[in-house]
Amino acid sequence: MGKLRVIGIGPGSIENMSLRALKAIENSDVIVGYNKYIDMIKDLVEGKEVYSTGMMGEEDRCKEALELSKDKNVALISTGDSGIYGMAGLILELRKDEEVEVIPGITASSSAGSVVGAPLMHDNCNISLSDLMTPYEDIKKRVKLAAEGDFVISLYNPKSKGRNKYLMECIDIIRGFRKDSTPVAVVRNALRDDQNYTLSQIKDFDDSTVDMMSIVIVGNSKSYLKNGYFITPRGYASKKRDVSRR
Amino acid sequence: MGKLRVIGIGPGSIENMSLRALKAIENSDVIVGYNKYIDMIKDLVEGKEVYSTGMMGEEDRCKEALELSKDKNVALISTGDSGIYGMAGLILELRKDEEVEVIPGITASSSAGSVVGAPLMHDNCNISLSDLMTPYEDIKKRVKLAAEGDFVISLYNPKSKGRNKYLMECIDIIRGFRKDSTPVAVVRNALRDDQNYTLSQIKDFDDSTVDMMSIVIVGNSKSYLKNGYFITPRGYASKKRDVSRR
Repeated sequence: MGKLRVIGIGPGSIENMSLRALKAIENSDVIVGYNKYIDMIKDLVEGKEVYSTGMMGEEDRCKEALELSKDKNVALISTGDSGIYGMAGLILELRKDEEVEVIPGITASSSAGSVVGAPLMHDNCNISLSDLMTPYEDIKKRVKLAAEGDFVISLYNPKSKGRNKYLMECIDIIRGFRKDSTPVAVVRNALRDDQNYTLSQIKDFDDSTVDMMSIVIVGNSKSYLKNGYFITPRGYASKKRDVSRR
Repeated sequence: MGKLRVIGIGPGSIENMSLRALKAIENSDVIVGYNKYIDMIKDLVEGKEVYSTGMMGEEDRCKEALELSKDKNVALISTGDSGIYGMAGLILELRKDEEVEVIPGITASSSAGSVVGAPLMHDNCNISLSDLMTPYEDIKKRVKLAAEGDFVISLYNPKSKGRNKYLMECIDIIRGFRKDSTPVAVVRNALRDDQNYTLSQIKDFDDSTVDMMSIVIVGNSKSYLKNGYFITPRGYASKKRDVSRR
């Protein structure tokens, strides 16, 4: 009798993974995951049975992982947190009586945020712009309400070839509720070797560097840029002692 | 010339911390933090200079950490992600020319989510119910808009002695936009030794077990309970192949 561990490996390097995730991978007989993610941790995977598939094979991967876990210890890996746009949900939807453990990781907005400063310090939300499983009209409605609610907004899957206009449309929606100087960060490959980022004000936002490996973070009404950092204060000036300009 | 590392240690155990956070603490001369958090990692801290304060000393802690970092390597620790309701923002607000590195961790909603299944699988938001630095009217408005936007909602700092009615009021606001069977999780001390949790439907929600060590997670319109797990599908049925009931 084996066990299936659904593991979030964080941004994609071994050093940003938890010790628990690391040990769970080491103690597994079989590693299942998208081949690009398995490549990121290939030192850990060496010598183990590997079942990897292309990006679109998610449901097959989950079924295979559940089947294999009947007599082996299986690690199903995804980047970020396994529980946020990861594999934990689909596994639990498909699960019958297999033993499953969900191991969380650092989600992509946390990784991206740490690269540019402290943009997520106050109430914040994650929205995926992928319309593969959610109608675009629902996505736009959610973006509008998040903007109106003054959330810091992290956009996952911000742009792909098939939907290259969504991001600018969503930024325009947010802009209706924000001042022109609101910071926007584009962080590409956060905490990976080829990491890069841009910071701009929302009025000048340019989506040309954004791709599927990027996270886009838009500040709330109090966010600002200072010495190259994107900072969101912990609260609203009316309630706090003002420390921001000292 | 030292360096200040602002470190998110995750839920509070060494095993759920990243290797990067672990190494950064090991390589620091001084550890600064709330004494309860320092206790959680006391094996790592042994033999080091420690500057700990009570919970309300946040600004003093940050100033002390910046001052100390002028000639020592300093680790300023907080639980969860240092960039989400953590210390990274205040440090960058107060920073003059000190060298600062932000090291992310697993945020509390990810930890809590992993304990009860996969509640955060789709678009989700974090809202703090603490009115210490944000007016309660703003908090309620945000809760309403998040509910209307069908976000999965994680409530941080859900209840304290001074504001023991906010949580039920906010749950009532959310209930106006959700069906009666919407799952609600209360996860207390997630991924710590004394972890416990309850799952209920929003119509039966009872706040009696909730305290400041708890995270409350409310599902979206598609979330459901199955075999003791809280599951949110990755998208909306109209766009996806239905795998949830097989």
